[in-house]
Amino acid sequence: MSTEKKAVTAITDMDADFTQWYTDVCIKAELIDYTSVKGMFIYRPYGYAIWENIQAYLDKRFKETGHANVAMPMLIPESLLQKEKDHVEGFAPECAWVTHGGSEELEERLCVRPTSETVFCDHWSHIVHSWRDLPLLYNQWCSVLRWEKTSRPFLRHREFLWQEGHTLHATEEEAVTETEQMLNIYADLCETVLAMPVVKGLKTDKEKFAGAERTYTIECMMHDKKALQSGTSHFFGNGFAKAFGIAFSDKNNQLTAPFETSWGLSTRILGGIIMTHGDNRGLVLPPRIAPIQVVIVPVAQHKAGVLEACHQLAGQLKAAGLRVKLDDSDQSPGWKFAEYEMKGVPLRLELGPKDLEKNQCVLVRRDSGEKTFVSLEGIEKTAQSLLDDIHNALFAKAQKNLEDNIYTAESLEEAKAIQEQKGGFVKTLWCGELECELKMKEEAGMTSRCLPLEQPHILGVCPICGKPAHKTIYWGVAY
Amino acid sequence: MSTEKKAVTAITDMDADFTQWYTDVCIKAELIDYTSVKGMFIYRPYGYAIWENIQAYLDKRFKETGHANVAMPMLIPESLLQKEKDHVEGFAPECAWVTHGGSEELEERLCVRPTSETVFCDHWSHIVHSWRDLPLLYNQWCSVLRWEKTSRPFLRHREFLWQEGHTLHATEEEAVTETEQMLNIYADLCETVLAMPVVKGLKTDKEKFAGAERTYTIECMMHDKKALQSGTSHFFGNGFAKAFGIAFSDKNNQLTAPFETSWGLSTRILGGIIMTHGDNRGLVLPPRIAPIQVVIVPVAQHKAGVLEACHQLAGQLKAAGLRVKLDDSDQSPGWKFAEYEMKGVPLRLELGPKDLEKNQCVLVRRDSGEKTFVSLEGIEKTAQSLLDDIHNALFAKAQKNLEDNIYTAESLEEAKAIQEQKGGFVKTLWCGELECELKMKEEAGMTSRCLPLEQPHILGVCPICGKPAHKTIYWGVAY
Repeated sequence: MSTEKKAVTAITDMDADFTQWYTDVCIKAELIDYTSVKGMFIYRPYGYAIWENIQAYLDKRFKETGHANVAMPMLIPESLLQKEKDHVEGFAPECAWVTHGGSEELEERLCVRPTSETVFCDHWSHIVHSWRDLPLLYNQWCSVLRWEKTSRPFLRHREFLWQEGHTLHATEEEAVTETEQMLNIYADLCETVLAMPVVKGLKTDKEKFAGAERTYTIECMMHDKKALQSGTSHFFGNGFAKAFGIAFSDKNNQLTAPFETSWGLSTRILGGIIMTHGDNRGLVLPPRIAPIQVVIVPVAQHKAGVLEACHQLAGQLKAAGLRVKLDDSDQSPGWKFAEYEMKGVPLRLELGPKDLEKNQCVLVRRDSGEKTFVSLEGIEKTAQSLLDDIHNALFAKAQKNLEDNIYTAESLEEAKAIQEQKGGFVKTLWCGELECELKMKEEAGMTSRCLPLEQPHILGVCPICGKPAHKTIYWGVAY
Repeated sequence: MSTEKKAVTAITDMDADFTQWYTDVCIKAELIDYTSVKGMFIYRPYGYAIWENIQAYLDKRFKETGHANVAMPMLIPESLLQKEKDHVEGFAPECAWVTHGGSEELEERLCVRPTSETVFCDHWSHIVHSWRDLPLLYNQWCSVLRWEKTSRPFLRHREFLWQEGHTLHATEEEAVTETEQMLNIYADLCETVLAMPVVKGLKTDKEKFAGAERTYTIECMMHDKKALQSGTSHFFGNGFAKAFGIAFSDKNNQLTAPFETSWGLSTRILGGIIMTHGDNRGLVLPPRIAPIQVVIVPVAQHKAGVLEACHQLAGQLKAAGLRVKLDDSDQSPGWKFAEYEMKGVPLRLELGPKDLEKNQCVLVRRDSGEKTFVSLEGIEKTAQSLLDDIHNALFAKAQKNLEDNIYTAESLEEAKAIQEQKGGFVKTLWCGELECELKMKEEAGMTSRCLPLEQPHILGVCPICGKPAHKTIYWGVAY
């Protein structure tokens, strides 16, 4: 029938072509759509709902730690962007520029924000006077533009959604503590909500944020063993404050430049979820951010009592705080099974006339496919406990993938061989020189991922230049 | 002391200079700040928190009525904007244009969205095929740009925050029902949450949204008797669908153009809150969206037991679901009283050593200044009930202001005299001709506000041209 909603069709095999598999999942799970502007995407309801659940978690954590949301202008005058030298060098090449307002050419062109350090600092230079005004703990949820040449759904957009936190502190110590606290909140999100284990570390000078003194990162490993930088937190020292003329009278009446941080996590994390947990039947969503945690599929729904029982069950599960969808459309159960598998719904509940007689239903796990008959008695607890099991199983599987694919190398050749034959993260010592970092990229195709916060403190030599080295570093191919 | 946080200073008298009073409140209550780009503002934490409470209410109502959030690109190709003739004529003159990405000039310039009908329609033209795909009930929270010549905090920004709902329906009837449903949700927000009575009506053809067949509006009356258009809901017919080639196979396999609606409410409503409820001591916030509903001010806080009791009270009130701030800073109680009056906090709770002895505290209403001694026993219920009283009192006062300032006129001269001497809304009959609408503007300085949904169905003559008329219309001077 031509008016039938199109059935979910097969997707590319992930082991045959991971890139195409990824795109297929993004499109067929209805997460995203392309637009007529290259590199700009539409976040469709199902994709956006995942982001909303991530937002809800982070926003709560941000507020519990004293942060307030604000909204800054999306346009930044070119002169403002230029106030901090390293920052403008990093971002100007990928700015989109507004040059006309209505029919008039602007006197100064305005950049659509690629990030908002400059506008926060400009504002703070007006409102900060005394130690009583500090700390300022701000966050904003918005989209930013970066005019990149290539694009991929979630991973690289010209416009993407994110949150950017910006804070200002009286002391360096307090600012560093803040930077680390926010990294830990990102790590908590990944591990306890998204079932994605992380490596916490520091970026090298080459890889740190433009204008930052220090960039903290969490790095995740995808199913194909490539790295995804999933969230970053920056300590700026007081360089921006000085560039923007922000100063406060301290308790001794001394005019002092405060210390700044910023930290951001974007919708690229959705790409991470897909590439960490997905399989050949489509998306697999971690239960704690799944827009639908349990889908109820009636079997032989025209039979007496089936739909009524399904509606009652849906109400019961919702009342217990679960996100539930009852699909009572006239599509076949088989169509529905495939549809919600593609969409990665963690649990499917099937209920037909025979189940009803036995006061039971069928629960099917999306991750393992495991099917169990369970009593309708206490179904809320059974479902909740299975959702927790699924979270734990997804985390354990991803953790194993991470641990199994961190290799130690003692020479550049060895690092190169690991990268070519196995992929994953390669752990080495490093002398700290940019030259060696560039050589690793050139010879082995890997960038530095991070200097892990947990340093084993080994003394040895840099496998690239042979000079004494004591820093442990992770290398990898990254998205 | 130069390091002391600056005390709240007096604001302009609202009866002497309402415009300056308004700006003073926006700045001194720390709702907003100016930026280096004309017409673009910073929503500061306190102002943004009010918006977040409005968002929470609306988002819940939108979801309860089946809507899902999405995110569309902020940039619209010029060719896409031009697809619907009336729409582009209305918006092109105030678009901001991106012409360069990085160092390259774009092949086609991109407009920063002034509104998103065109991108929603473009997307829908790809995904809509069958009646099974309808209705589509979408909303997005975002900011939009309109390059206007003049600007005022909240009321007229070049960039403002809003939500824009966009829906697509199989039938005209369903789309009209949706348009009216969303107007009613806006009216509920105003009346039951913001304590702002509304007049619901239809815009004239001259005043309707560019490209719409019909625009519904809610109009509020400010303290100075001017009108504020506070939310609008548009029925588009199937004109956009045809312009964008959106069609679906209906149940009879006929290819059909669906019907569209859109509806929006913006941060200009914050300007409405200020101008409806504010007074000469500053902002007065309706309790249901106040970021702080109860501020606790300790008196003689160095005395034994005072701060402990205040902390306990704060915990108790928070546990009861109230938004509470305990200000235990070292500012004087007098400083704090003025600060939270300026910020419009509905209830102040004072507690000192003597109160503690008597197991009581002092509650002071921001709206009336009324001060009562109440027992600490059951303080949650006392506070909640007072907050409800404040809501009702604010609504009743605003309702009286509205009702007292709607005047009936039977001639253009009479309308003009009312506008000059009294202000408010002038109610007349109207023949429906644009010419008369323009004449009212020219002669009496009033625009049409709306044709109220509740029409008294009087037959008479148009006071402007003298021809037969049966439509009742409201005129006014609007923000």
